[in-house]
Amino acid sequence: MTHVSMDSRLLLHLVTDRTLSRGRSLVEVVQEAVAGGVTCVQLREKNCSTREFLDEALLLKELLQPLGLPLIINDRVDIALSVGADGVHLGQTDLPISHARRLLGPDCLIGVSAESVDDAIEAQQQGADYIGISPVFSTPTKTDTAPALGLEGIRRIREQVQIPLVGIGGINLTNARQVREAGADGVAVVSAIMSAESPRQAAEIMRGVLG
Amino acid sequence: MTHVSMDSRLLLHLVTDRTLSRGRSLVEVVQEAVAGGVTCVQLREKNCSTREFLDEALLLKELLQPLGLPLIINDRVDIALSVGADGVHLGQTDLPISHARRLLGPDCLIGVSAESVDDAIEAQQQGADYIGISPVFSTPTKTDTAPALGLEGIRRIREQVQIPLVGIGGINLTNARQVREAGADGVAVVSAIMSAESPRQAAEIMRGVLG
Repeated sequence: MTHVSMDSRLLLHLVTDRTLSRGRSLVEVVQEAVAGGVTCVQLREKNCSTREFLDEALLLKELLQPLGLPLIINDRVDIALSVGADGVHLGQTDLPISHARRLLGPDCLIGVSAESVDDAIEAQQQGADYIGISPVFSTPTKTDTAPALGLEGIRRIREQVQIPLVGIGGINLTNARQVREAGADGVAVVSAIMSAESPRQAAEIMRGVLG
Repeated sequence: MTHVSMDSRLLLHLVTDRTLSRGRSLVEVVQEAVAGGVTCVQLREKNCSTREFLDEALLLKELLQPLGLPLIINDRVDIALSVGADGVHLGQTDLPISHARRLLGPDCLIGVSAESVDDAIEAQQQGADYIGISPVFSTPTKTDTAPALGLEGIRRIREQVQIPLVGIGGINLTNARQVREAGADGVAVVSAIMSAESPRQAAEIMRGVLG
């Protein structure tokens, strides 16, 4: 099964992290990033109340929906349902895919983080719509991650699974192209855009590199 | 509108806190507490992954459902939906009642914490099924709470709202009866049972005090 239209929306995926926004509001950074060519936004919040998470999600929904860009919510299926998000992204310690699918229905995107070839095969079998290969390279953004899979890890996963793959972790202007060439349909970045002096320019240049 | 059967199920409400369980597993403490006469359990988890929260909820569901005792999930509507819980309890920084109701449907209980008469009136207007008056007395269990409402606070809320009221915060054997006499349909306890040497005996004695 191929997902041509989905593949293009996953090309440049911004994963948010408010702690890296250099004091700017999340919506401000996302607005800039989207103007620069980000094709998809995953809202990730780890240390705030449910109400704050909801409020951020509503702001991003309002920004992204008119542009036709998917909003994906990290972990929280209840927030995704509440705001009518386009998808959720599940880590290995979030809800199992089967539970999320039952709550979200068939049309909501479910992305799943895979730290190995086996994770990726299992996620595809369980009905994930795309896989976040994590981490591709070692990264300072997350400290609780598995060992880096590298470009070779992407190639090995690409051989085994047919759903779209998004590389995440340590991806920047110098290596994004290689991640695509190794078989990923897109890349996800956090600090390369969240912390950029101009998130718009950072996104523009990244889009140029990805081709 | 009166909820006779609901009122009796709210009589003695255990709110969990794993950090107070003195090394015992949550399910072990809850099992004891239920044997002693707890009528309702609210699973509250603040520092664990979604998967751990889900797993605890599934264990409690398995324990409580055959006994006909309600399982209420604190904050996380997605966990409540996933395990088919009987209700959710929402604090003032959790999902708004309207969002939770839309996701949960009309039959799921929605309890809401009220820290003032105004909170309580608003929660009733928005469709809460019961109100957690919090805190009745000052308590060491939660450090981020509003000033204690006292027995007088319960009386004032009782005059204004018709749905069931559950007092929480600093309630123990010496004051539980007064909380009922002030107008609460039930009491919720955390440490008085979670930390008791015998949660079963603590629940039995509390039931006796409540009458």
